[in-house]
Amino acid sequence: MLPWDLYVIITTSLGGGRPTLELVRQALAGGATAIQLREKELPARQLVALGREIRELTRSAGATFIIDDRLDVALAVEADGVHIGQEDLPAAIARRLLGPGRILGVSVGTVDQARQAVADGADYLGVGTLFATSSKGDAGEPIGLAGLKAIREAVTVPIVGIGGINSSNAAGVMAAGADGVAVISAVIGAPDITAAARELLAAVRQSRA
Amino acid sequence: MLPWDLYVIITTSLGGGRPTLELVRQALAGGATAIQLREKELPARQLVALGREIRELTRSAGATFIIDDRLDVALAVEADGVHIGQEDLPAAIARRLLGPGRILGVSVGTVDQARQAVADGADYLGVGTLFATSSKGDAGEPIGLAGLKAIREAVTVPIVGIGGINSSNAAGVMAAGADGVAVISAVIGAPDITAAARELLAAVRQSRA
Repeated sequence: MLPWDLYVIITTSLGGGRPTLELVRQALAGGATAIQLREKELPARQLVALGREIRELTRSAGATFIIDDRLDVALAVEADGVHIGQEDLPAAIARRLLGPGRILGVSVGTVDQARQAVADGADYLGVGTLFATSSKGDAGEPIGLAGLKAIREAVTVPIVGIGGINSSNAAGVMAAGADGVAVISAVIGAPDITAAARELLAAVRQSRA
Repeated sequence: MLPWDLYVIITTSLGGGRPTLELVRQALAGGATAIQLREKELPARQLVALGREIRELTRSAGATFIIDDRLDVALAVEADGVHIGQEDLPAAIARRLLGPGRILGVSVGTVDQARQAVADGADYLGVGTLFATSSKGDAGEPIGLAGLKAIREAVTVPIVGIGGINSSNAAGVMAAGADGVAVISAVIGAPDITAAARELLAAVRQSRA
């Protein structure tokens, strides 16, 4: 599996009016190691069209490509995997439909959810919400670094922290046991996406040095 | 394949405040031969939960069960098939992901769309909008019985007419070449769903006598 260092979630409405593929290109130019397409409002046909283009961009960049929620779209565009939240397909079903060759990510906020997700076959966990954030309206109360540490001690699969992460607090997230950071606004909402990605990636990598 | 005589689409918000499973039970009690679950707003986890219950109800009734749009959910609940519109997954991709054992339905409004859908592997077509209707806001201009006849002459797969069909005009739809009628409000919007289904089914079957 490729490194999770910098996992950039693409939700076009949070990208300052810039087109989806421009957000992806600039994030990849800044070193994003994984791209997730998270568009809750788009019809499947548009998701497939976008997904095909992002598949090409991520492949060229050597980055992992994950689709949020729509497992069928992930299969359709040959994404590397799918990411599901607690309101999406049950993880055990997703694991079965996805087969062993693709990556299953699951959003968790508690130790119980983390253990269940791993039992259901998750390959990595998105752990959060860590800090207060405006990007995901449904994100719930922040669990903080203590919540992340507790999950880190409970499971061995890779963890990406999510929720309110930026270049100032990324080192703390890594120190708490994350394998990488997932961000939306901190990268695609920045005036200079490439620079923002580069800065965040440097913070993640320096935290390991 | 089971008969398409009366294909009832379940969209809970159009069911007069009654719960989803009550709409399904009453439609089946009135003789619906196929049930489609069409809930554009529900998260996948709720679709799976509902879909599992409808799977049991339709199996007991000997009715076909189709899921709208979400091919992954259709696979998850072992529905008989999936129905896709022109904004959903491309039909050829849906055919490949679905495998040969499940039913693929495609919404079409023109002869070109119908020919393409069949070439892509559709097992049946939903043809419409036939008449003006309020159930589907995105339904477009009615194509009328002339539009249905033209499609009937162009393809040989089963056709269900859709859009503004009721017990008064169902015989005309069948005479124009449909193999069954698909309805939303005419059944689930009726005060007595079972009676409405029974009346419509009788109209369809008498048209063949």
